[in-house]
Amino acid sequence: MSAGFPANSVGLVVPQRQHFEAPLTLECGVTLERFELVYETYGRLNAARDNAVLICHALSGDHHAAGYHAADDRRPGWWDNCIGPGRPVDTNRFFVVCPNNLGGCAGSTGPLSENPATGRPFGPDFPIVTVRDWVESQARLADALGIPSWAAVLGGSLGGMQALQWAIDYPDRVRHAVVIAAAPKLSTQNIAFNEVARHAIRSDANFHGGRYFDHDAVPEHGLMLARMLGHITYLSDDVLMSRFGRELRDGKIGFGYDVEFQIESYLRHQGESFVKRFDANTYLLMTRSLDYFDPSREFNGNLAAAVARASAKFLVVSFSSDWRFSPARSREIVRALLDADRDVSYVEIESEQGHDSFLLEVPLYHRVLRTYFQGMPLSSLEP
Amino acid sequence: MSAGFPANSVGLVVPQRQHFEAPLTLECGVTLERFELVYETYGRLNAARDNAVLICHALSGDHHAAGYHAADDRRPGWWDNCIGPGRPVDTNRFFVVCPNNLGGCAGSTGPLSENPATGRPFGPDFPIVTVRDWVESQARLADALGIPSWAAVLGGSLGGMQALQWAIDYPDRVRHAVVIAAAPKLSTQNIAFNEVARHAIRSDANFHGGRYFDHDAVPEHGLMLARMLGHITYLSDDVLMSRFGRELRDGKIGFGYDVEFQIESYLRHQGESFVKRFDANTYLLMTRSLDYFDPSREFNGNLAAAVARASAKFLVVSFSSDWRFSPARSREIVRALLDADRDVSYVEIESEQGHDSFLLEVPLYHRVLRTYFQGMPLSSLEP
Repeated sequence: MSAGFPANSVGLVVPQRQHFEAPLTLECGVTLERFELVYETYGRLNAARDNAVLICHALSGDHHAAGYHAADDRRPGWWDNCIGPGRPVDTNRFFVVCPNNLGGCAGSTGPLSENPATGRPFGPDFPIVTVRDWVESQARLADALGIPSWAAVLGGSLGGMQALQWAIDYPDRVRHAVVIAAAPKLSTQNIAFNEVARHAIRSDANFHGGRYFDHDAVPEHGLMLARMLGHITYLSDDVLMSRFGRELRDGKIGFGYDVEFQIESYLRHQGESFVKRFDANTYLLMTRSLDYFDPSREFNGNLAAAVARASAKFLVVSFSSDWRFSPARSREIVRALLDADRDVSYVEIESEQGHDSFLLEVPLYHRVLRTYFQGMPLSSLEP
Repeated sequence: MSAGFPANSVGLVVPQRQHFEAPLTLECGVTLERFELVYETYGRLNAARDNAVLICHALSGDHHAAGYHAADDRRPGWWDNCIGPGRPVDTNRFFVVCPNNLGGCAGSTGPLSENPATGRPFGPDFPIVTVRDWVESQARLADALGIPSWAAVLGGSLGGMQALQWAIDYPDRVRHAVVIAAAPKLSTQNIAFNEVARHAIRSDANFHGGRYFDHDAVPEHGLMLARMLGHITYLSDDVLMSRFGRELRDGKIGFGYDVEFQIESYLRHQGESFVKRFDANTYLLMTRSLDYFDPSREFNGNLAAAVARASAKFLVVSFSSDWRFSPARSREIVRALLDADRDVSYVEIESEQGHDSFLLEVPLYHRVLRTYFQGMPLSSLEP
């Protein structure tokens, strides 16, 4: 570990890359002849290969979950508070793997990758990938890393959906599924917000049918709008009020459309910085994958029948002020697991931070994760 | 009343127009040398001139609250279910006046009007009008119509805010203020949604700084997005679910970005039809006016001190599933009125229709309005 990083940080990390040469046929019917996943690992795989934990990222996440890429990095990975030596997902015990999802824009094969058929980026021709497809691609990564089964698969939001799907699709390869701030399928309102975000991107004059790269353009206004809207749904009304209130930046009404309220400044800043790091085609793909997610679909809408396939132990966590995926949505998952006689623990954490809580160091939440991971028996800590 | 219209309809109505030649200085400091308001009336003013009711419209409303403009009109005015002979606001007893707000786009002076200084439409140069400015302009309309005081001023949402401001600014001219599905000021989340809507309009390549009329263009994508987003906030999650569910239009996943879910079709349709009837500059103005509304501002945030000026009796109505202006926001108004020893009745109506409930014929809601209006003593029903 480099000097200068906090003692319980995983320190400097280097992303790795795995090539897959076996064709992968996606749910949409398209076959990718080959693909790559970029990923990071923290901690060491033990000799019994039973201490591996898979972290699944959400809509705008990536493989950089913990640690730093450079000594002068100002910010660590997106879930650094949760992963590290002595942290809830303790890298002294666990070997943690976090890939960038297929279809992503942080290095794994996706819309930014070269389409072998054209020599140009896939862009809008990259197929829409589903949660099941992600599970399948992550299973191949597990094979490549020599991980027969995961001690745990965990994630928040869309990441939690992947954990749920993993437990259903690979019952023998998931011992614990940790499903945080998720839902068994999107509500109509969730889909509606996604549709507005997609419409913003697709109606941007710089979108060019998704081939903006051929026009040296970026649909930045649309992507910015999508992100601004997202941020509203990630935070609770109460936390917005306590953080930004109705404070006027200049102390008085300006009678114009420039930034006047602090919340406007916050949203614009969030939107602008997102545009610099995220690809619009990936945003479309990720939101569509969210819309489509519904493991009960092939069981006539019976979620209990779907989760009856799983043999993992489940931990389901929700947050009181989360209105994107409210506690009621988590309870639907819990109810289905109970109906299917699965082993499930459920915790609703009191937090005013809304959906974003899953990324934050909410004390009781982290204590729950810590205790849960501490309780997992492992063969040996030595590799 | 024309044959063919329902018996309890006000029937065929003709919008009227009032010119005002006395200058009006707005809160922003700009003076309009002259202006016009277009309005409709239903029923007859009695001899004592004490049966007049002012209807204040919301964000996207106009002066056409009831009745029909033509024998073959498919749809009546926006609040037709509430206004008419024998309806809750009974035009056999009351003389009902509904103006299009200053800054609107349905005929009153606003961004579409000719700017006398340039001979071109005002467009973005039309000043931002506040709720107090609307009250002031409506007071001039009352003067012109010979109405010394209103039996009631009522409205839903932004209309309810006008009713509240009327009671504060003109205590001697409002006998009843009916404040429906409103809030004493926007929450941070409310402002955030408005900001996203405005950003969508202003970043549309066809917006041209608000001078789209000079480019034969309309920022239709931006305005459409604003309306789509609005519709999500007008309806509850539950009613979206029960009306649209997760139904796929073609019965199966299409793996694309065209309309697949019914809710997408609904939102796009709402957006497209709005673009045909509404002006983008007015939308900006109306949302900014909402942001600015806060009658407590000049009382150091003390709403009770603001409403202490009022002498009207109040009826405050909220709807259980309204998350745009939730019952808690109405209770803030009620609490301030109680703290100021004002006369207030409060009803929270059970309805799953969300904010939109105020426009709908929710039986208990209409019974409450009917009873409240029946209880208002009037001098005489004869003009």
